[in-house]
Amino acid sequence: MYRYALKVEYNGAPFHGWQRQNDVPSVQGVIEAALAKVEPRVHNIAAAGRTDAGVHALAQVAHCDMERDWKPFRLSEALNYHMKPHPVAIVACAPVSEEFHARFSALERRYLFRVLVRRAPATHQAGLVWQVKKPLDLDAMRAAAKHLIGKHDFTTFRSTICQSVSPIKTIDRLDMVEVETIAGLEVHFDVRARSFLHNQVRSFVGTLERVGAGSLNPDDVKKMREARDRQACGPVSPPHGLYLAHVAYPVDPFEA
Amino acid sequence: MYRYALKVEYNGAPFHGWQRQNDVPSVQGVIEAALAKVEPRVHNIAAAGRTDAGVHALAQVAHCDMERDWKPFRLSEALNYHMKPHPVAIVACAPVSEEFHARFSALERRYLFRVLVRRAPATHQAGLVWQVKKPLDLDAMRAAAKHLIGKHDFTTFRSTICQSVSPIKTIDRLDMVEVETIAGLEVHFDVRARSFLHNQVRSFVGTLERVGAGSLNPDDVKKMREARDRQACGPVSPPHGLYLAHVAYPVDPFEA
Repeated sequence: MYRYALKVEYNGAPFHGWQRQNDVPSVQGVIEAALAKVEPRVHNIAAAGRTDAGVHALAQVAHCDMERDWKPFRLSEALNYHMKPHPVAIVACAPVSEEFHARFSALERRYLFRVLVRRAPATHQAGLVWQVKKPLDLDAMRAAAKHLIGKHDFTTFRSTICQSVSPIKTIDRLDMVEVETIAGLEVHFDVRARSFLHNQVRSFVGTLERVGAGSLNPDDVKKMREARDRQACGPVSPPHGLYLAHVAYPVDPFEA
Repeated sequence: MYRYALKVEYNGAPFHGWQRQNDVPSVQGVIEAALAKVEPRVHNIAAAGRTDAGVHALAQVAHCDMERDWKPFRLSEALNYHMKPHPVAIVACAPVSEEFHARFSALERRYLFRVLVRRAPATHQAGLVWQVKKPLDLDAMRAAAKHLIGKHDFTTFRSTICQSVSPIKTIDRLDMVEVETIAGLEVHFDVRARSFLHNQVRSFVGTLERVGAGSLNPDDVKKMREARDRQACGPVSPPHGLYLAHVAYPVDPFEA
């Protein structure tokens, strides 16, 4: 068998998340159905991040095993053809060794969260950003974010259905930048860690938005984290501003 | 009566263009229906540019006449509320004198055209850009664009159903810039004129794309223009990369 790494972009709106489920559309299901068109049999692919319903990806990474020695460009072209009209695209494809595992070889996941700050309803970017109507105090949000960076027990910021063995994770980066777009000001969160708890990024963003709006202060976030109690969490942001933006491996399979 | 200028953003995808028509959705129809919710009667608004089916706007300008002396912010909030869930938003609203006419007072229209250059199908930006698969030679396109700037007979670049009295127009600017986005490289066309012929911008973009792809050279565009013959035009680009981006007036009604 020949193994390929796939870099996958998708609009999460029509899907019940990455993971294949019976009777509902999933990103994994769309890709596996396309694989079955090019090599007819059951396919079972693995991905770096099992994104939730409505969450997008710019660069999810999955791997697949093929019987034929495909030219990577041909394989990605064939998959993109067969996935139409679903909003899923293979944006890069590369041969990898059988030691490569999209999930277990990953060293770091990076998420982008887009918040659009404006009063009038979003038109072109509806479903692609989380829109908030009031200005955000970035300085306060950055001060609060310091309490979420590093190695901590993140029980507060973890969904009750999280299946992770431990609530302890290490957040490498939690940066916020303002970006002027044709639709108005966006705040982009850039969050990086080896791995995340379920709903951790959305719990961070929902809580930090409350800090930015002035209804929480930065020290509250420290107390929330220290409470180690899901009840202490701020609101969880909606999924549609969240993008899996990058997955790092010891050697980038798409660099060659 | 009190007159208000409205700056309107919309996603053109679900509409048969700006102009109200029987039995099909239009942007004008959506706004007039919302006006009828706040002041129940027949409304008839005028706009700077009557965009075609599928064409977007970032800043269309329209004006309406109201019986009540509305606070502009209240009026825009009420209209945005009543226009839900249509992808149309009033992004600014300002009182103007009865001499102000959104169409006849306009000094310049400015259009943005977004071309996404990439191989894999667009996911998040599908419907918001015109996607081309091959790299474009911007230098050649800029050389060709020089033949489209200034005062000329643009019969070649005019739809056969154009109702303009004269085919002579003056193009003030036709600039192209490359913009790196999270989905890949975009080429943004910035085209400005007092007024345009029907399909003129899309005829320009479709023709210049052929120059960028190498199937036409810059001098061909000069010959095409000089032919003054619609048959000489290159392909007309699709509507969904086009945005009415700005309308200039002697005094900007939204500046105050």
